Amino acid sequence: MGLSIEEGSYVLLFHNRGKKWLVKVTSEKKLHTHLGVIDIPSIIGMEYGSSLQTPLGKVVYLIKPTVHDFIMKSERRTQIVYPKDLGYIAVRAGITNGSQILEIGTGSGATTTFIASIVKPTGHIYSYDINHESISIACRNLNKAGMSEFVTLKEIDARHGMEEKNFDAAIIDLGDPWAVANQVHKALKPCGSFVAICPTINQVEKTAIALKNGFVDIDCSEVLIRNIEAREGMTRPSMRMVGHTAYLIFGRKCDV
Amino acid sequence: MGLSIEEGSYVLLFHNRGKKWLVKVTSEKKLHTHLGVIDIPSIIGMEYGSSLQTPLGKVVYLIKPTVHDFIMKSERRTQIVYPKDLGYIAVRAGITNGSQILEIGTGSGATTTFIASIVKPTGHIYSYDINHESISIACRNLNKAGMSEFVTLKEIDARHGMEEKNFDAAIIDLGDPWAVANQVHKALKPCGSFVAICPTINQVEKTAIALKNGFVDIDCSEVLIRNIEAREGMTRPSMRMVGHTAYLIFGRKCDV
Amino acid sequence: MGLSIEEGSYVLLFHNRGKKWLVKVTSEKKLHTHLGVIDIPSIIGMEYGSSLQTPLGKVVYLIKPTVHDFIMKSERRTQIVYPKDLGYIAVRAGITNGSQILEIGTGSGATTTFIASIVKPTGHIYSYDINHESISIACRNLNKAGMSEFVTLKEIDARHGMEEKNFDAAIIDLGDPWAVANQVHKALKPCGSFVAICPTINQVEKTAIALKNGFVDIDCSEVLIRNIEAREGMTRPSMRMVGHTAYLIFGRKCDV
Amino acid sequence: MGLSIEEGSYVLLFHNRGKKWLVKVTSEKKLHTHLGVIDIPSIIGMEYGSSLQTPLGKVVYLIKPTVHDFIMKSERRTQIVYPKDLGYIAVRAGITNGSQILEIGTGSGATTTFIASIVKPTGHIYSYDINHESISIACRNLNKAGMSEFVTLKEIDARHGMEEKNFDAAIIDLGDPWAVANQVHKALKPCGSFVAICPTINQVEKTAIALKNGFVDIDCSEVLIRNIEAREGMTRPSMRMVGHTAYLIFGRKCDV
Repeated sequence: MGLSIEEGSYVLLFHNRGKKWLVKVTSEKKLHTHLGVIDIPSIIGMEYGSSLQTPLGKVVYLIKPTVHDFIMKSERRTQIVYPKDLGYIAVRAGITNGSQILEIGTGSGATTTFIASIVKPTGHIYSYDINHESISIACRNLNKAGMSEFVTLKEIDARHGMEEKNFDAAIIDLGDPWAVANQVHKALKPCGSFVAICPTINQVEKTAIALKNGFVDIDCSEVLIRNIEAREGMTRPSMRMVGHTAYLIFGRKCDV
Repeated sequence: MGLSIEEGSYVLLFHNRGKKWLVKVTSEKKLHTHLGVIDIPSIIGMEYGSSLQTPLGKVVYLIKPTVHDFIMKSERRTQIVYPKDLGYIAVRAGITNGSQILEIGTGSGATTTFIASIVKPTGHIYSYDINHESISIACRNLNKAGMSEFVTLKEIDARHGMEEKNFDAAIIDLGDPWAVANQVHKALKPCGSFVAICPTINQVEKTAIALKNGFVDIDCSEVLIRNIEAREGMTRPSMRMVGHTAYLIFGRKCDV
Repeated sequence: MGLSIEEGSYVLLFHNRGKKWLVKVTSEKKLHTHLGVIDIPSIIGMEYGSSLQTPLGKVVYLIKPTVHDFIMKSERRTQIVYPKDLGYIAVRAGITNGSQILEIGTGSGATTTFIASIVKPTGHIYSYDINHESISIACRNLNKAGMSEFVTLKEIDARHGMEEKNFDAAIIDLGDPWAVANQVHKALKPCGSFVAICPTINQVEKTAIALKNGFVDIDCSEVLIRNIEAREGMTRPSMRMVGHTAYLIFGRKCDV
Repeated sequence: MGLSIEEGSYVLLFHNRGKKWLVKVTSEKKLHTHLGVIDIPSIIGMEYGSSLQTPLGKVVYLIKPTVHDFIMKSERRTQIVYPKDLGYIAVRAGITNGSQILEIGTGSGATTTFIASIVKPTGHIYSYDINHESISIACRNLNKAGMSEFVTLKEIDARHGMEEKNFDAAIIDLGDPWAVANQVHKALKPCGSFVAICPTINQVEKTAIALKNGFVDIDCSEVLIRNIEAREGMTRPSMRMVGHTAYLIFGRKCDV
């Protein structure tokens, strides 16, 4: 009843949280790891969820990668938006299956990949970035995760406006989100959601001020995630955590 | 170019974060608020995104409700899973459009509503709860949000096993998630995701121990959200925050 | 071996965290509480650490108040600095027994009381505030906690400079700490610590910029405290927490 | 008006938060750093608060070390209690100048050093540890910070009880604080404070249960600290933070 691994498909080779590799299964590849060399062709025909032993006797599980795995193992040029933030963006902005999404600042395509996996197949993302390399990387990442057909990448400066209209939500990952607030307002449906991802508090403040013009329900949040090490009789939060990624700011287009 | 409000549709009457009402627009209803009485039939034909003035001169915006609004304004019997947690569950468990989902512990259907909005129309949720009132409330909440057809509610004790199989993910919101770990393991696809929502750390520990049998990539997290009050020259986090809702624990079915 | 409660001394009547009263024991006083009326003279001669029963059968412990109790139950005009922040200020600024302290912004004297309890008897605090009522309240609070002789309160505007010199540390609780940075610099010993308490991030930024002139080791932090409800088999953080009080910014006077 | 650096005294050589060295000024020492070699005897006679240039042209400030500096730069065998926790312990347990303190689990003496700096000269700490190396390290650290005369180190197992009595507060830094709860109860004054430092939540739960016998006002907290990077127009929390050190649990001895 299992699902066999075929040539050409992706597998997450999982030893533990710190040692895992996302590989495309081809007929001629060897993966060199600290756990020993893994012969990739030998896993063709094995089942997802099963495991292998490395030459050094370490167990590696063959996991069918999720969108989360593709994102966490994506090729990247700059910092990606973290899963903790991606999830909250989707919920808070009301993004659902079928939503039409504008993204400004494609970056490496992590946000694009996740949002596409929700809105597909009838929803679509138009994603703008002025950086050629970002567009190339995002294109490759979307391909790997199987999301390309639900995304139109545009190497265009969104500050000059967008051709598309009637978006349900716009996700802005730029250094100056306030600079596109007016253009985004025009491109959104009535009540459409504005979301900006801001590393600094100064960006939050400037964006919040810009949103007073044409948006209501302006709401700024910061999502923190703590890992808990659950072990029998010795459970505690991890000693290290990510202290900050970005603030998220939301608004809804109204006649203000 | 706008979208008119019709009789029978839902509107979020929004004054500010603390004063907002989700109403069904009918031809004979008056909403009594501290801002004055709002005559609901009078908004038929108005456009989403526009506003009205109450008899007391307060502005109320007419917002087309998102899934987030339906969840936050849902009828409830017990605490719902918060948006911050819902989003992370979807991302971390790799839930996407088309996913087949098992839910144990429907509660008021908030999680069900959100997850349905992602997996629909080809994905589906089978949601189990032994409490008759919960099932009734969840049914009404799913109807309001337009998600009923993507969910099968079952007033059955999941401890005795599920008829359905091959789920991509299972979301467990019970007091003793470890008690269903074996049954959930059988119902999941290989590599399928287990997610449990645990208010106490003791539940986390017991669940983590149970998951060692048949699951890998066991990962426990806590998501915190801070509201930022962004005002020109006076920006700071809110004085009050929700200190805790629940821990989230994840695992993936493998041959362990 | 116990310590008897005498007329004129203070007692913390403790039922639980939410129900506790700090009273001065006098020969004629009745304390009216939801737990019943407590006859204060009747506790004269009882021992600290013992308990009484109210007419409604509730147990109330007779606790010898600490400086923490005096602070938490102090008379106040404005928000006091929280214990979590007070403790970190003392440690981070290197305040110890014998330290000479400048305080600008006495407020209700909570910080003053705590710091005095550390630096006394050879250390001293000069505390400035321009508000007459604050000075009066602080004076009463310091008296109650037995700290008056270690503090000199001055109803003077510190912006015009201080007469005293050679302080080990200065604690600034003003809306515009940057406005006194130069005067504080003059009043500190070489390597003396500057500490400012800033509710908003904008204040932090402005103060940090001002400190570049004459200070090194500029360090800004935020201290958060979470209450844990420890109950057998049901332990979890409290549902509510204080989300923010103030940022703390530190620097040390050097020849920059 | 400045204070000259003498042979034999300590200096904190401060370049930035990550590059600082605590050295004893002797007539023949060279400090090798990435910033270049620093000739220590050459700083004899310079003033605290002044700076020098390394051969590589880097500025290093000569700071008079505070207790905080001695703690952060202390020799250590195991993890020390962090300043954020030390400060809260002092405040919450009502530790002040003159307090008589019992410490069980001296460790490297960081807590001992800080608490001694508050309670001295009339207060005193009796600090127990069964590990000979810990006692030696703590002894050296206390000497450096000038706190030795206010502390009596005892290489004795506190589980068998203490000779001293009438402590104002007891600070327990052991793996099983509940195991000494009874002995600590006997050693405390009426209303005396019990404090335990617990890395895991399981320790917190067991200690809280043990404290029900003889203690009231049982209170468990976790202190978190976030560093803020305050830069003009680019202010944000640091990307990394310490996610967890220890929970703190408090109680007060009463006739329960």
